[in-house]
Amino acid sequence: MDNNVGLKPMDAEQLRDYAHQMVDFIADYYKSIENFPVLSQVQPGYLHKLIPDSAPNHPESLQNVLDDVKAKILPGVTHWQSPNYFAYYPSNSSVAGFLGEMLSAGLNIVGFSWITSPAATELEMIVLDWLGQGGGVIQGTASEAVLVVLLAARDKALRKVGKNALEKLVVYASDQTHASLQKACQIGGIHPENCRVLKTDSSTNYSISPDLVTEAISHDVGIGLIPFFLCASVGTTSSTAVDPLLELGMIAKSNEMWFHVDAAYAGSACICPEYRQYLNGVEEADSFNMNAHKWFLTNFDCSALWVKDRNALIQSLSTNPEYLKNKASQANLVMDYKDWQIPLGRRFRSLKLWMVLRLYGLENLQCYIRNHIQLAKHFEALISQDPRFEVVTPRLFSLVCFRLLPPHNDEDHGNKLNHDLLDAVNTTGKIFISHTVLSGKYILRFAVGAPLTEERHVNAAWKVLQDEASTLLGSLVE
Amino acid sequence: MDNNVGLKPMDAEQLRDYAHQMVDFIADYYKSIENFPVLSQVQPGYLHKLIPDSAPNHPESLQNVLDDVKAKILPGVTHWQSPNYFAYYPSNSSVAGFLGEMLSAGLNIVGFSWITSPAATELEMIVLDWLGQGGGVIQGTASEAVLVVLLAARDKALRKVGKNALEKLVVYASDQTHASLQKACQIGGIHPENCRVLKTDSSTNYSISPDLVTEAISHDVGIGLIPFFLCASVGTTSSTAVDPLLELGMIAKSNEMWFHVDAAYAGSACICPEYRQYLNGVEEADSFNMNAHKWFLTNFDCSALWVKDRNALIQSLSTNPEYLKNKASQANLVMDYKDWQIPLGRRFRSLKLWMVLRLYGLENLQCYIRNHIQLAKHFEALISQDPRFEVVTPRLFSLVCFRLLPPHNDEDHGNKLNHDLLDAVNTTGKIFISHTVLSGKYILRFAVGAPLTEERHVNAAWKVLQDEASTLLGSLVE
Repeated sequence: MDNNVGLKPMDAEQLRDYAHQMVDFIADYYKSIENFPVLSQVQPGYLHKLIPDSAPNHPESLQNVLDDVKAKILPGVTHWQSPNYFAYYPSNSSVAGFLGEMLSAGLNIVGFSWITSPAATELEMIVLDWLGQGGGVIQGTASEAVLVVLLAARDKALRKVGKNALEKLVVYASDQTHASLQKACQIGGIHPENCRVLKTDSSTNYSISPDLVTEAISHDVGIGLIPFFLCASVGTTSSTAVDPLLELGMIAKSNEMWFHVDAAYAGSACICPEYRQYLNGVEEADSFNMNAHKWFLTNFDCSALWVKDRNALIQSLSTNPEYLKNKASQANLVMDYKDWQIPLGRRFRSLKLWMVLRLYGLENLQCYIRNHIQLAKHFEALISQDPRFEVVTPRLFSLVCFRLLPPHNDEDHGNKLNHDLLDAVNTTGKIFISHTVLSGKYILRFAVGAPLTEERHVNAAWKVLQDEASTLLGSLVE
Repeated sequence: MDNNVGLKPMDAEQLRDYAHQMVDFIADYYKSIENFPVLSQVQPGYLHKLIPDSAPNHPESLQNVLDDVKAKILPGVTHWQSPNYFAYYPSNSSVAGFLGEMLSAGLNIVGFSWITSPAATELEMIVLDWLGQGGGVIQGTASEAVLVVLLAARDKALRKVGKNALEKLVVYASDQTHASLQKACQIGGIHPENCRVLKTDSSTNYSISPDLVTEAISHDVGIGLIPFFLCASVGTTSSTAVDPLLELGMIAKSNEMWFHVDAAYAGSACICPEYRQYLNGVEEADSFNMNAHKWFLTNFDCSALWVKDRNALIQSLSTNPEYLKNKASQANLVMDYKDWQIPLGRRFRSLKLWMVLRLYGLENLQCYIRNHIQLAKHFEALISQDPRFEVVTPRLFSLVCFRLLPPHNDEDHGNKLNHDLLDAVNTTGKIFISHTVLSGKYILRFAVGAPLTEERHVNAAWKVLQDEASTLLGSLVE
């Protein structure tokens, strides 16, 4: 770049040249992804020592920057796309999802109102109709999805009972519900003592008991509180527990509560007919959410939310400043998604979901899901063959919850043992898994779902776990 | 893709092949961008007629999809990157910003906690330190920025005065403040009647009067309310008004209120020493926000927020579920940005800001800003030479607020005349401008800031405005 002629920041031929280089850089990254430790092994503050304290005054070359990405950034990356990534839940990248993200960044429109790019609003409606049945919107994350519906439900309730009743509103969910509900309550001003966190245990496989919900609601109504929101999960974060939607939906309905279903992870599996049963009762839900960016090959972020009463959402989230008014909106001919979400601006995210569906097709996507579930079953079988380990909860989808049994049934050391095993396997850099706690027990989570994972990776991961377990148990014996 | 061998959704060589095709598609788009009507001319619902009602079962070719992008999507795109785009505020795309977005989508990590990619957290801290002075975080949008600080301020106030005092909390801003503050108040449960929208007028060039703020606060304190949040703007959306930060900051301080400065658009100009004056007093702010995605060449979304008391933010927004616990976080050795924002998941957005700063350098970025301001000055001069028009507010940055004067000073028709002029020029497809209302008058906004805009585009835009004005005024005479 020549300083004298002024900056040309969007020269089509420079974009072509540089972006081709970036494509090769990223393709090469995927070719070599197994060479990196999957969990970054850097120490806190590592990057401060590698990067200057101030921005450059003069331009640097792309090659310099790419060299720095290799030398300084990649060591600090935890490789979510590695086939050896089994932590949390997956965050799928795919060729189609990546292309969609490229195109969205290339057009770089900001689709807050229909008029700011009609295609952005309309393609989003159409593609979400492909997967659901009207009232769909793409949120960034499941956290935002549960927040916007909680706000809609809150304001709907307050319109009925009076705006000063906020401190009487009560939310119901289980102790397995994702923390984003708690955060939504904090943001929306729901009093913490009005968030009912109903206990679950292994007797229901950590799904919520409708009786407990009914009981809690009766009690709260009895002391003058106002139940207004019930959140169920299809595939909880800890163990993929599935709440009984049909019964919960009926409870919500008879108490005039908003019923939200969080299927952030497992929703993707329900495109296969054999898993559709887990959504039985979803017809009763006021809102339903699934993250296409988890296990549906759509690069982060893309969280699909369907809402029955869109007006409730719009009443809570709309603003109508003069500078955004336009003919189409004022005439009520169009939908402006700005009123369905927290931010004003929004990216053209439907492009990537559309590309995933078109470049792969539903049948391939079903195979993709089934393959991961098959691999998880395979892992479960491997565990069952080693008496030192146990599978803790029945596997429903592609997550296996297991642990190393403490020697001599010494449960006092079981948690530390598994904590140490987690630390040991993750420190190898060969695999990355995460954990949870169920009924006081520290549990290891093995979530299959990275697009590159094959049976050989699952087998190798199991070997790492066995080897590290042997070392740990050996040192206990010594 | 062969159905028989199963889906390989992340094959490095397919990514290379397809992504190179997409690069050429996007580079060609930029080469031909001036051929499109800048404001999409489609009718509501146009896309439903062009896209099937259900997702395909079988894969389609990339060529098919790209053909559809051309034939079906692009006509519905409003081309924010067109050099003839002068509406709202710009949303800059640049080669560097695009590359950063590509790399972020390629790595596709989810950086909610330090451990999930240390480089994502650390690069963000470093790059925001380059531009600010600690306490920085990238939000998606200015709406999210003002929301998170409002929540932090709300909860800080409630911890002091008791959690049942929500209905007593009062927010102060001007009638020129962006609607995102109103939305943040709705979300945070601030009562609408406690949102003081202080009137501005041309006597202060639409900046807020400190006396009015003091007066309003005294009155509210007198009736037992609790002032807790004051929002100032540097470069309002309607007319780039700049509020007096120093005086407002002192008022906020003496009343123990949170003082937020929204410089979403004009913040970028303040990298030039000659515009730094508009930030005088920002040292008093509790939080400061500027959108790198507007006028700083960083593709949408990238909104930089700096906060003085990060603990206030974290206290409002943190959750700590078992399944996210890890050694580094538990030992307090690291920062987890999940606790600084609404969503849990987050993209690696600092990459694009870092690339913009490195590939262009600060001097080039300053030239870039100055060039747009120069073009706006030029447009202002053109208007001044045509007695049929007037410049309505003094131009401070790259936005010009102007209008067509109603013939015979007939103000009754002035608003309709300018509304019709806006509609007429936007319908040509040659330029896209937007509007606002100031002191009851309908005003046209001409915002220079698209990366491809050159003097010839400004001249051509002015010609379109003159021609359409002549037609309109001619039809009035008839």
